[in-house]
Amino acid sequence: MGDEAQRLAEIVGEHHLLTGEDVSEDYAGDESLVGEPVTPKYVVKPATAAEVAAVLAVATEHRIPVTARGSGSGLSAAARPHPDGILVSFERMNAILEIDTTNHVAVVQPGVTLSELDSQTAASGLGYTVYPGEMSASIGGNVGTNAGGMRAVKYGVTRNNVLGLQAVLPTGEVIRTGGKTVKTSTGYDLTQLVIGSEGTLALATEITVRLHPRLTHGATVLAPFGDLDQVMTAVPAIVSSGLAPHVLEYIDALTMAAITYTAQLSLGIPDEVRDATQAYLVVGLESREADRLDGDVETLGELLGELGATDVYVLEGGSARKLIEAREKAFWTAKTAGADDVIDVVVPRAAMPEFLRRAREVAAGTESGVVGCGHAGDGNVHLAIFQKDPAKRASLLHDIFAMAMELGGAISGEHGIGRAKKEHFLELEDPAKIELMKRVKAAFDPAGILNPGVLFD
Amino acid sequence: MGDEAQRLAEIVGEHHLLTGEDVSEDYAGDESLVGEPVTPKYVVKPATAAEVAAVLAVATEHRIPVTARGSGSGLSAAARPHPDGILVSFERMNAILEIDTTNHVAVVQPGVTLSELDSQTAASGLGYTVYPGEMSASIGGNVGTNAGGMRAVKYGVTRNNVLGLQAVLPTGEVIRTGGKTVKTSTGYDLTQLVIGSEGTLALATEITVRLHPRLTHGATVLAPFGDLDQVMTAVPAIVSSGLAPHVLEYIDALTMAAITYTAQLSLGIPDEVRDATQAYLVVGLESREADRLDGDVETLGELLGELGATDVYVLEGGSARKLIEAREKAFWTAKTAGADDVIDVVVPRAAMPEFLRRAREVAAGTESGVVGCGHAGDGNVHLAIFQKDPAKRASLLHDIFAMAMELGGAISGEHGIGRAKKEHFLELEDPAKIELMKRVKAAFDPAGILNPGVLFD
Ligand SMILES: Cc1cc2nc3c(=O)[nH]c(=O)nc-3n(C[C@H](O)[C@H](O)[C@H](O)COP(=O)(O)OP(=O)(O)OC[C@H]3O[C@@H](n4cnc5c(N)ncnc54)[C@H](O)[C@@H]3O)c2cc1C
Ligand SMILES: Cc1cc2nc3c(=O)[nH]c(=O)nc-3n(C[C@H](O)[C@H](O)[C@H](O)COP(=O)(O)OP(=O)(O)OC[C@H]3O[C@@H](n4cnc5c(N)ncnc54)[C@H](O)[C@@H]3O)c2cc1C
Repeated sequence: MGDEAQRLAEIVGEHHLLTGEDVSEDYAGDESLVGEPVTPKYVVKPATAAEVAAVLAVATEHRIPVTARGSGSGLSAAARPHPDGILVSFERMNAILEIDTTNHVAVVQPGVTLSELDSQTAASGLGYTVYPGEMSASIGGNVGTNAGGMRAVKYGVTRNNVLGLQAVLPTGEVIRTGGKTVKTSTGYDLTQLVIGSEGTLALATEITVRLHPRLTHGATVLAPFGDLDQVMTAVPAIVSSGLAPHVLEYIDALTMAAITYTAQLSLGIPDEVRDATQAYLVVGLESREADRLDGDVETLGELLGELGATDVYVLEGGSARKLIEAREKAFWTAKTAGADDVIDVVVPRAAMPEFLRRAREVAAGTESGVVGCGHAGDGNVHLAIFQKDPAKRASLLHDIFAMAMELGGAISGEHGIGRAKKEHFLELEDPAKIELMKRVKAAFDPAGILNPGVLFD
Repeated sequence: MGDEAQRLAEIVGEHHLLTGEDVSEDYAGDESLVGEPVTPKYVVKPATAAEVAAVLAVATEHRIPVTARGSGSGLSAAARPHPDGILVSFERMNAILEIDTTNHVAVVQPGVTLSELDSQTAASGLGYTVYPGEMSASIGGNVGTNAGGMRAVKYGVTRNNVLGLQAVLPTGEVIRTGGKTVKTSTGYDLTQLVIGSEGTLALATEITVRLHPRLTHGATVLAPFGDLDQVMTAVPAIVSSGLAPHVLEYIDALTMAAITYTAQLSLGIPDEVRDATQAYLVVGLESREADRLDGDVETLGELLGELGATDVYVLEGGSARKLIEAREKAFWTAKTAGADDVIDVVVPRAAMPEFLRRAREVAAGTESGVVGCGHAGDGNVHLAIFQKDPAKRASLLHDIFAMAMELGGAISGEHGIGRAKKEHFLELEDPAKIELMKRVKAAFDPAGILNPGVLFD
């Protein structure tokens, strides 16, 4: 073992350092469809913030690239390591440190998964409301990507649900930002800066998340529309209605066919309705009280009718759950179907009709397939891209991203830039902002060891 | 006129540059009770982002300190200018550029006041929900301080309600961050970084804020408690109840006496109840529907009883409004009463009883008076400090701030650090964080022209 390896082994313990053959393929990347997996030189599995700090100190000293990894479920290749680098896997830092039912927060280590936190909070009647489809994702990964998911339309994204961090700076200091308080005006908000920074500024070693009461009564409503444009126009009206849906998804007809087929799920929609449908809205409502829920479902049904839905189905528990699960797995379905990329452009809600219309035009022009679904309530459109030719695909993506930005949107709503969309980000984003972000990066990481190649070159 | 003055006059026009005698006292500071007003060398009143950028370019070239000013209603002396500096007053940039009822946002210039935005949005049934007591405050100032106010318990603070900025960097570039989208994961969140930075990183020249539907049915409930501790213990329970109050304030008996006296407001509370009261809770509820509101008020009444309220009064419209207004003016009442400082410590909600108990002990030990009220739902305690001796006062504040931090809180929940609390901030905050913040500051402002003396020395 070299000097580096020796020191890393001393820090985390020999058993928790992997090198060479021992590094399994699992560590070579995330779920992004773009690019190839890369095996890191070292995998370390620290158990404490102090160990993380010591690893980063060695890395800074030897100028070794460091990539943080939660569960590797990210979709932008941001957890794909550097071949000469260290992958810091948080799998051993997976303890829920506290569920504080008075302040409505949980304090967790970064390796805690969403499903673990969900099941451990259930008894308290509270829950962490960030629900990206993949429940194996870690809270640390959520912080890295500023994850969103289906419930963001009501509860916000990770940024709105993380109150504080313990974080290790690449220079080796361990700091605490924010905490159990719901607000502060005490210097710059470092918590917010680290959230969404894709492991390039600091590594989170402890995370204080908000918990929300779990409302006991829920309903899922499915509404087919004859016209994609109408679906998109309906969305802002539902958001404005005051019904406060906790799920507001659109699924285009092809995607619905694919995901229900994969899930072996029959929704009981008559053939003639299904055949005339271009897209569906799935709306989730919840309430503290059963009658209020009933009233809201009725109001929603009427509203959907006015907005042009061909029909309205209130799904019963089993098929509602299955449909939501099938929607969560849409990424896998797209992958199986041979999608070449999956992107998650975000635009102002009201710009969705125009965005989708133009995206489909551009795609048609390059003979590419573009189908999708998305967190419509957030203006967040998930498109599966079918175009084998890399040059054509790059040009298509460039045009789609540029158009989203022109409409006041951004390249990614929740998956992040990572390595997968970096080229487009650097090309399309205002150079003054890129330069400013690089200076902020240098303020945190003067040696440039944290996730080089992600966000910037 | 010197060369500097000449150039500034060319940029904003001679009429919009003030110097010497023409600089009125109004520009010499904000509403902080700490320290003395300072007349700036220049006041400029730009009309556009380009003018702001040109002013900053001159300032960078000549190394002239620049302080942004909204309405000067801040409470931390963060808008107090430098004697050799330029005060950039946003009074002419006061246009509401757009009220977008489909995306639920407004796009405004920074000098727009809260009352102006409130009245202009009323017809749309939407509103900007940041309500610091002072409705003359500007949206730019809200961004500067990350203002909170009474409705933050339900709608969050400025940080949660600003989606995008146009901002001028001290190096002269004009950038746009965020926009009408509700989320992004596209590089570092510069919007969030500028919010709460007290004019030290960049100047906001356009602000995109969220609007929320105005709920038509509202009620205000007043509950006296025999014991301050009980009030504080009641708060987390009300937050947990799912009733989602949009106001959840505590007012101690002395403050209630003072503000109702000043407002000439009689709440119809029998003498014997009033005499036995240590503190009050004021709870605001709102709903889309009248019956739901009635149901919620009933549930709240029962809950308050269980939590130890001696009585529960549902205030009728007129006195409800007057009580809220009187509470908003608590600062003026404290000032009139001769308060030497007003602070706004924030702690985790559940730590409020202990915080207040210990704060009063510490105060008693130094023969200081400490009375207050606060945004209890946020754990945000506003204390008026009565202690004429500067050394004793400094030591008292130091102890109170240190104790808040020990309890997991922060020095300021919403007023900011500014110049007024800087000494304590720099003494009590982790030096590694201060150093990191300074490096972030340098990333934005290499010449150090923006609000020197605020936050850092
Ligand atoms: C089927 C499927 C559905 C999905 N649906 C959604 C969705 O609806 N919404 C959504 O937002 N995402 C979705 N995702 C993407 C993914 O689940 C999220 O991005 C998630 O937040 C990643 O968590 P992870 O633990 O797997 O992170 P990883 O992939 O391991 O890492 C993600 C990023 O975070 C960084 N990171 C990891 N840990 C830390 C740490 N402790 N400190 C600092 N940085 C760290 C990494 O370096 C990397 O940059 C989906 C993915 C799949 C496979
Ligand atoms: C009676 C009273 C009650 C109050 N109640 C509350 C309350 O409940 N909650 C609360 O949070 N505050 C409260 N405040 C404080 C104050 O109203 C808020 O801090 C408000 O946000 C200040 O706005 P302003 O326009 O007056 O800002 P100013 O005082 O002019 O400036 C405040 C800060 O913002 C910076 N700034 C101004 N404009 C810009 C810009 N365009 N770009 C960048 N930075 C800028 C300034 O440099 C300064 O650092 C109260 C004040 C009073 C007098």
